[in-house]
Amino acid sequence: MNIYFASSIRGGREDQDLYFSIIAELQKIGTVLTEHIGKKELGVMGENSLTDTEIFERDMAWIRESDVVVAEVTTPSLGVGYELGQAESMGKKIICLYRKMEGRRLSAMVSGNSYMKVFEYESLEDVKDILSKNLA
Amino acid sequence: MNIYFASSIRGGREDQDLYFSIIAELQKIGTVLTEHIGKKELGVMGENSLTDTEIFERDMAWIRESDVVVAEVTTPSLGVGYELGQAESMGKKIICLYRKMEGRRLSAMVSGNSYMKVFEYESLEDVKDILSKNLA
Repeated sequence: MNIYFASSIRGGREDQDLYFSIIAELQKIGTVLTEHIGKKELGVMGENSLTDTEIFERDMAWIRESDVVVAEVTTPSLGVGYELGQAESMGKKIICLYRKMEGRRLSAMVSGNSYMKVFEYESLEDVKDILSKNLA
Repeated sequence: MNIYFASSIRGGREDQDLYFSIIAELQKIGTVLTEHIGKKELGVMGENSLTDTEIFERDMAWIRESDVVVAEVTTPSLGVGYELGQAESMGKKIICLYRKMEGRRLSAMVSGNSYMKVFEYESLEDVKDILSKNLA
């Protein structure tokens, strides 16, 4: 199974350790096309070895090749939102993972959208449980 | 001309006055379907009188009805990203407005995407100029 994992990069890297752990879980289930976004070397400014056009074209090709898109949607990200909009139009299965936070609300484009499966979680254990029930 | 104006709501309302001014400019050119997002009453938590599903369905209907989507993309927003991904798949004309900020980079899904017209601006005067050259 090809998995496209999407999460905020330029919007904030605070949760990098968590993303890294989620990717490790996903790798037990299938091939994670976007495994580089869990790497420590990737700073808040994102990738520097590729042009924006190259990143865009690679990521869109990966979405087309994927069987499922798993998105961590807690930190608002323009890129993740775009990828979800495109993945939906391609008919890809979509799973969103969200940590509820005080004073924040998930976008209605995700929470009000019946096409996507949206799951709230608090811990990595919750994520493991969600993935095993919905992907494995 | 029907214009869908998209901007960060739940991600941050710091720029509300600016959005209000951009909407006022767009209203000189066409009908702004999303004029409510410039309203002062709309807090950081967004709209409360509609369910998330109602907001989602209304906004998607508005995108379908629009001739052009104008998005302010400076503040990362999952909802705006999703709307751009969907608008592109519907073949809508897209104009993105972006203010360059220290330590931030625009998502490659927008900056590396040749489908969208992306314009950097600093002032409302710049926005007027961009809109008159590309929409009027």
